[in-house]
Amino acid sequence: MFLSKLDSLGNALKLIDENQKVMDTEIIPLVEAHKRVLAEDIIAYHNSPPFDKSAMDGFALKGENTFGASQSNPKTLKIVDAIGAGDFCDKTINEGEAIVIATGAPVPEGADAVLMKEYTTTDGDELTIYSQVTPGENVSPKAEDIEKGNQILSKNTFIRYQEMGLIASAGYANVEVYKKPKIKLIITGNELVEPTKEEMDKAKIINSNQYTIKAMIEDAGATVSISHAGDTFEEVRDEVLKASEEYDVIMTTGGTAISKGDVVLDVVDDLGEILFHGVAIRPGKPIGAGIINGKMIFTFSGQPVAAMTQFDIFARKYLFKMQGRDLNWHVVKREAKLKIPSQLGRTDYIRAFSDDDYARHILNRGSGIIRSMVEANSYIIIDENDEGYQKGDIVDVVFFDSLLW
Amino acid sequence: MFLSKLDSLGNALKLIDENQKVMDTEIIPLVEAHKRVLAEDIIAYHNSPPFDKSAMDGFALKGENTFGASQSNPKTLKIVDAIGAGDFCDKTINEGEAIVIATGAPVPEGADAVLMKEYTTTDGDELTIYSQVTPGENVSPKAEDIEKGNQILSKNTFIRYQEMGLIASAGYANVEVYKKPKIKLIITGNELVEPTKEEMDKAKIINSNQYTIKAMIEDAGATVSISHAGDTFEEVRDEVLKASEEYDVIMTTGGTAISKGDVVLDVVDDLGEILFHGVAIRPGKPIGAGIINGKMIFTFSGQPVAAMTQFDIFARKYLFKMQGRDLNWHVVKREAKLKIPSQLGRTDYIRAFSDDDYARHILNRGSGIIRSMVEANSYIIIDENDEGYQKGDIVDVVFFDSLLW
Repeated sequence: MFLSKLDSLGNALKLIDENQKVMDTEIIPLVEAHKRVLAEDIIAYHNSPPFDKSAMDGFALKGENTFGASQSNPKTLKIVDAIGAGDFCDKTINEGEAIVIATGAPVPEGADAVLMKEYTTTDGDELTIYSQVTPGENVSPKAEDIEKGNQILSKNTFIRYQEMGLIASAGYANVEVYKKPKIKLIITGNELVEPTKEEMDKAKIINSNQYTIKAMIEDAGATVSISHAGDTFEEVRDEVLKASEEYDVIMTTGGTAISKGDVVLDVVDDLGEILFHGVAIRPGKPIGAGIINGKMIFTFSGQPVAAMTQFDIFARKYLFKMQGRDLNWHVVKREAKLKIPSQLGRTDYIRAFSDDDYARHILNRGSGIIRSMVEANSYIIIDENDEGYQKGDIVDVVFFDSLLW
Repeated sequence: MFLSKLDSLGNALKLIDENQKVMDTEIIPLVEAHKRVLAEDIIAYHNSPPFDKSAMDGFALKGENTFGASQSNPKTLKIVDAIGAGDFCDKTINEGEAIVIATGAPVPEGADAVLMKEYTTTDGDELTIYSQVTPGENVSPKAEDIEKGNQILSKNTFIRYQEMGLIASAGYANVEVYKKPKIKLIITGNELVEPTKEEMDKAKIINSNQYTIKAMIEDAGATVSISHAGDTFEEVRDEVLKASEEYDVIMTTGGTAISKGDVVLDVVDDLGEILFHGVAIRPGKPIGAGIINGKMIFTFSGQPVAAMTQFDIFARKYLFKMQGRDLNWHVVKREAKLKIPSQLGRTDYIRAFSDDDYARHILNRGSGIIRSMVEANSYIIIDENDEGYQKGDIVDVVFFDSLLW
């Protein structure tokens, strides 16, 4: 397979989108649902709070019985009972009465406010108050947060820490979420060895892609298992075929073998269908994608930076959408610190270090220079219709952090 | 313990900072080091690439032997050998010679460029080239990414996916990182029950804090174990004392008991030292912190929103710094969509939904309204010296996402 004609970026992304799969769902304990995506609407089983709740330690009373009370003009009420948190009191408060109440306890019938303990003194059942409260003060009204029967969250909501609390309050001990996709990452390349402090054999190179791409898969909410294959058609074919039966998505890195063109794409062609191979972007032009056994396969470059950029552009959104979550790249505008040339007809993803005002691209940015990704925190994206920018021009920037799960 | 006098926010943060602890370090496999923090400088054991590496499938040759070659003016060279990825060839290329070379293979002596296969035809050992290459083209020079012996990352670097690749390339199969802090989260409150769909006993409230605060602790890189304690001094004291012996940090929620003031602070006072109790912020005023057995204890409110904000303001940075990572709140400027009043002498953390231009605060924002955190993606922070803002004023905004690990 030769990379003879490049697809446009738009066309390649469209082909991926047309083959989008969505994971099945599963019911899991809520306590494990942080950073998962809801696969059901959440309808509240309860009001929250379930009753008019005291927000303070103090005295439940009728607010109007306190009107005019002050340090110089104290008033006196009668204490008729006490309610601890978790307890219920079925007494009704009458004129001139008060009940000792704890934070979190239900405000009894007849009372409409809670006066903080700090503004009172007691002597037996005699309560002296030195401050007034308006009706409703220091009371969290029943259902102020959640109304029973209401839909409070919808399907496809990403569960942050605050959603965890809301779902719990609605009465859900378990929750239906999208399953995490299982990814098989196949690293090809006869030259690759594991990291070692010892001197390496001539012609061997440390395999860094398995570390970066594994971490990127985790940063897209998915799980990953790694295999290695040599550069032969048979070895790659065996691994890819097995993976297509056992995993939800396949990713490969490298896989160019002498005199054979791109062995990985040959395998995709043999086992399934190539969607595209070669896209007008830089870095990452040799990206391929295909379908095998109904599973998406992304074929990334062996060059580390190309592989990372390809993952960002093509795989990340696919993995998000598999889990019911959309990912629209959040493009912000920054002033270019340096001149950036670009070629018409190609979309450039230029590693850059950007802050709130400026974007400065990393100077040394060959597709094998991992340092360029380490020094960067963002891409400057140059559209295929632009020939680059001058210093001081406003450019499109996407922060790496904004792409994470 | 009464919350009689409020500490200033600055003073409370200073007291926490003065009691900052840093975790011990551990050596772990690199493959597990994603999102950990380096506790050692990384000095490269190797050059990367370790040799002049072919970046293409094609022919290694002398660039100047290709000068002038074109589709209409092809040139001919002699193929003298072939190098696959992972193989080494000790031949030296002479004038007029070329060697078949795979991506990733070492460029042999005498060659200084690689011509892509696409621009050639072969007939036995005769190579016809239809394009020229400049010396250096399609070759990744030895050490272009990493120079052996250089420090490529420093202690206290946060390990993103790109750092994973750089550390691997430098020859590290294992890496020294800060241990994750183990947090004991103690939920107090006799009124609290687990989430249930069934009707609840009168006076009972679902415990949502254990879900939100657990998730927030995870979002700060730490691990968490949850316990529950009733509202009595003895129950809370037992749990806190045990936690102070087995965990790195203790956090509590709730814990006000009838007629006793704040039982959790009484326990801190009994077992150790209270650093502060009550800070001039909203929401979250009743926040406390102390030291027990040399361990920091944060005492959060039972009110869910107050607890989340207290965690953000007081605990998050402490957990980051324990792991060797700083957290400076990234404040951005936005235009207020609505008028926001505030009280002098108190710092307000107002839940808001902000975009690239505007900040609109959430209207219903009692400290028990979890929905207000769910609808928000940011805080508008109003300094203690400001009385609030008018619509159209520029306000300080911090996005929740920017606070995550």
